[in-house]
Amino acid sequence: MKAVIIYSGGMDSYTLLNMLMENKDVEELKVLTFYYKQRHHKELDYARRFCEEVKIEFTLMDISNIFQPLTNKSSLINSSKDIPEGHYEDENMKQTFVPNRNMILLSVAAAYAFDNDLDTLAYGAHLGDHQIYPDCRKEFIDAMRVVLSLANYNTIDLHVPFVTLGWDKRDILKNGLAMGLDYSKTWTCYKGEVEPCMECDACRERMESFRVNSVRDPLISEDKWIEYIKEFDEVISG
Amino acid sequence: MKAVIIYSGGMDSYTLLNMLMENKDVEELKVLTFYYKQRHHKELDYARRFCEEVKIEFTLMDISNIFQPLTNKSSLINSSKDIPEGHYEDENMKQTFVPNRNMILLSVAAAYAFDNDLDTLAYGAHLGDHQIYPDCRKEFIDAMRVVLSLANYNTIDLHVPFVTLGWDKRDILKNGLAMGLDYSKTWTCYKGEVEPCMECDACRERMESFRVNSVRDPLISEDKWIEYIKEFDEVISG
Repeated sequence: MKAVIIYSGGMDSYTLLNMLMENKDVEELKVLTFYYKQRHHKELDYARRFCEEVKIEFTLMDISNIFQPLTNKSSLINSSKDIPEGHYEDENMKQTFVPNRNMILLSVAAAYAFDNDLDTLAYGAHLGDHQIYPDCRKEFIDAMRVVLSLANYNTIDLHVPFVTLGWDKRDILKNGLAMGLDYSKTWTCYKGEVEPCMECDACRERMESFRVNSVRDPLISEDKWIEYIKEFDEVISG
Repeated sequence: MKAVIIYSGGMDSYTLLNMLMENKDVEELKVLTFYYKQRHHKELDYARRFCEEVKIEFTLMDISNIFQPLTNKSSLINSSKDIPEGHYEDENMKQTFVPNRNMILLSVAAAYAFDNDLDTLAYGAHLGDHQIYPDCRKEFIDAMRVVLSLANYNTIDLHVPFVTLGWDKRDILKNGLAMGLDYSKTWTCYKGEVEPCMECDACRERMESFRVNSVRDPLISEDKWIEYIKEFDEVISG
């Protein structure tokens, strides 16, 4: 396959990118990263740096013009709103929903694929996302697959292995750790400050994945990690 | 319904906009127009002017950042390429295909609809388009309808009446003329110069629609129109 991957710089798409790099069926691989005025644009630097390291063609596409008139409601973009703290499942996490984000990203990436004579569009959606983001569900992806077979002169195949395999974030990390991947090369925190905030839902989900895999998140110092684990043990035993 | 219409300033979406303005089921109506570095950006002025005249909220969204890296192959955007002359059916008209354009426009418009609490997305695709543009086909629209019912917290309904009614450009014009619409308020020519070039495929299709409806295109002077009709008569009788 000749593929473009939507690469955010986070741990899911980093794992997928590395899987594609090791996949012998992949003849050609390009990376597309989107800037949509997300607060955590720090992830973009992580994305670029890794692509430079492994010498993969990296394109940063600025689509902030699109999201600018659409940003009033989502705290992921509107910096006057607080990022909600808590788990993704909570109702208030819907505040981080950017309207139709995945459909727009997939549409633009498909155009990029078509224009570059690529036949596959890879992205790292996974089962854990579906509960709050409607455009991460399997039904949405299946419907997009049909659209992408009809929208251009050639079919663009949608490669979403984590959904196909039924993996959630923990499974993705487990697989990536088994591959020997270095997750200090990824960024997840929505706040995008010097260190991960350890409070936002993205941090919590990431830390939980590492905890379940019995590995420390390399972005977090040993002291802080021990404190985090200890708190969790207390909750369990209490 | 509470609708947003994708309005190009051309005759198809102008007709649709007027139909929606007269439709009693429409409680709310907003206009979204896209600038994607199309050469014929003159149509945008026509779009804005008409919205000002009828006092409808008009949003011009600049999505040229997206299409800029995708513009090498399409003569609609790349001004170093000639606009092909001839009918849409011809193979070389594929040069005017902008990769995945409609899917991107629909995705962005759906995000706008969602963000503005609208439930309907209207656009003026019609049956005549399908032969060269894959993303104007009924199958594509049906597949997009499924995606738009899944992509957000609320369903966005796709209102594409010309495809539903089985109309082509001539039928659209026939209906618009019966409504008393003034097509001097629309622009179609791909070249976007002072007067329509009368040679590009967009001009030819437009002129043909007027000719079949036995009406002069108001953008073309009487002299030129008589000359055009005469040429056609000669072809018929010859």
